[in-house]
Amino acid sequence: MAVTPGKDVRCSIARSLEVLGEKWTLLVVREAAWGRTRFSEFRQALGVAPDVLADRLATLVEVGVLERRPYRVDGGRQREEYVLTAAGEDLRLVLGALAAWGDEHRPAPAGRASTFVEEATGEAVTLSFVSADGRTLEPREVSVVRTLSTPERAPSVEGAAAG
Amino acid sequence: MAVTPGKDVRCSIARSLEVLGEKWTLLVVREAAWGRTRFSEFRQALGVAPDVLADRLATLVEVGVLERRPYRVDGGRQREEYVLTAAGEDLRLVLGALAAWGDEHRPAPAGRASTFVEEATGEAVTLSFVSADGRTLEPREVSVVRTLSTPERAPSVEGAAAG
Repeated sequence: MAVTPGKDVRCSIARSLEVLGEKWTLLVVREAAWGRTRFSEFRQALGVAPDVLADRLATLVEVGVLERRPYRVDGGRQREEYVLTAAGEDLRLVLGALAAWGDEHRPAPAGRASTFVEEATGEAVTLSFVSADGRTLEPREVSVVRTLSTPERAPSVEGAAAG
Repeated sequence: MAVTPGKDVRCSIARSLEVLGEKWTLLVVREAAWGRTRFSEFRQALGVAPDVLADRLATLVEVGVLERRPYRVDGGRQREEYVLTAAGEDLRLVLGALAAWGDEHRPAPAGRASTFVEEATGEAVTLSFVSADGRTLEPREVSVVRTLSTPERAPSVEGAAAG
């Protein structure tokens, strides 16, 4: 786990990062979203060490982002591939937010590597905050407010898990 | 840097993770989005070691997510506080995506710690993919497609930077 939420147990951002924040994890999810399913494919695409990749895949299965499915090629021994679950497919929202921010604030001279499209039409889509009455809003028109009675200051630094 | 993009230099997701993927970084951004500005506030809220916090703040300044501003309290010596830049404010989209996913797939019994509201109205907003003609789409109605001529397989695993 990349981040021990500690006193942040109520924060959904911290809980997401607890499983997604580890190095390589979201890149594995990106590869899965692009349709890769096999250990060798992930490894070759990312250039990640096999033990690290095995650890990240196991974590993603454990938290319900990927599921293992058996497959067999040409009468060889049975192997397992990794497919996004419904929860994993919902991570497109996180990938989309990272892609939008990177396109805007860390642009690459060679252009974009990913586009997000509506499956039914093939047309490009954007990611946006949307008001209850359906207006799309710029990120700077939106505030993040704490909704629970989180103490303004923690009682002591020592009390916090530093992970 | 948490992830060396290596062959992923064209991928905006990888480029975003290069600066945001390191442990604690997005939690520092979350604290800044909640209005915290001072080193001692970040430290106390997160329970993170001072040297790690100093490193993350320096990186966030370097990549243009935070800016330093001088302040002075009661005639004491001048100190610096950290405020989100426009690029940092745009990270609300990433925080919003992580919060939405965590609320849905990693719910906490105590409820949500953050809500995203429209500044002008105070009303809650949601994050969504939006089609060119303004329809909001579920994440599973959206595909991530590679738009550049990325080779299907990398020529060799050795050629990839493993970070």
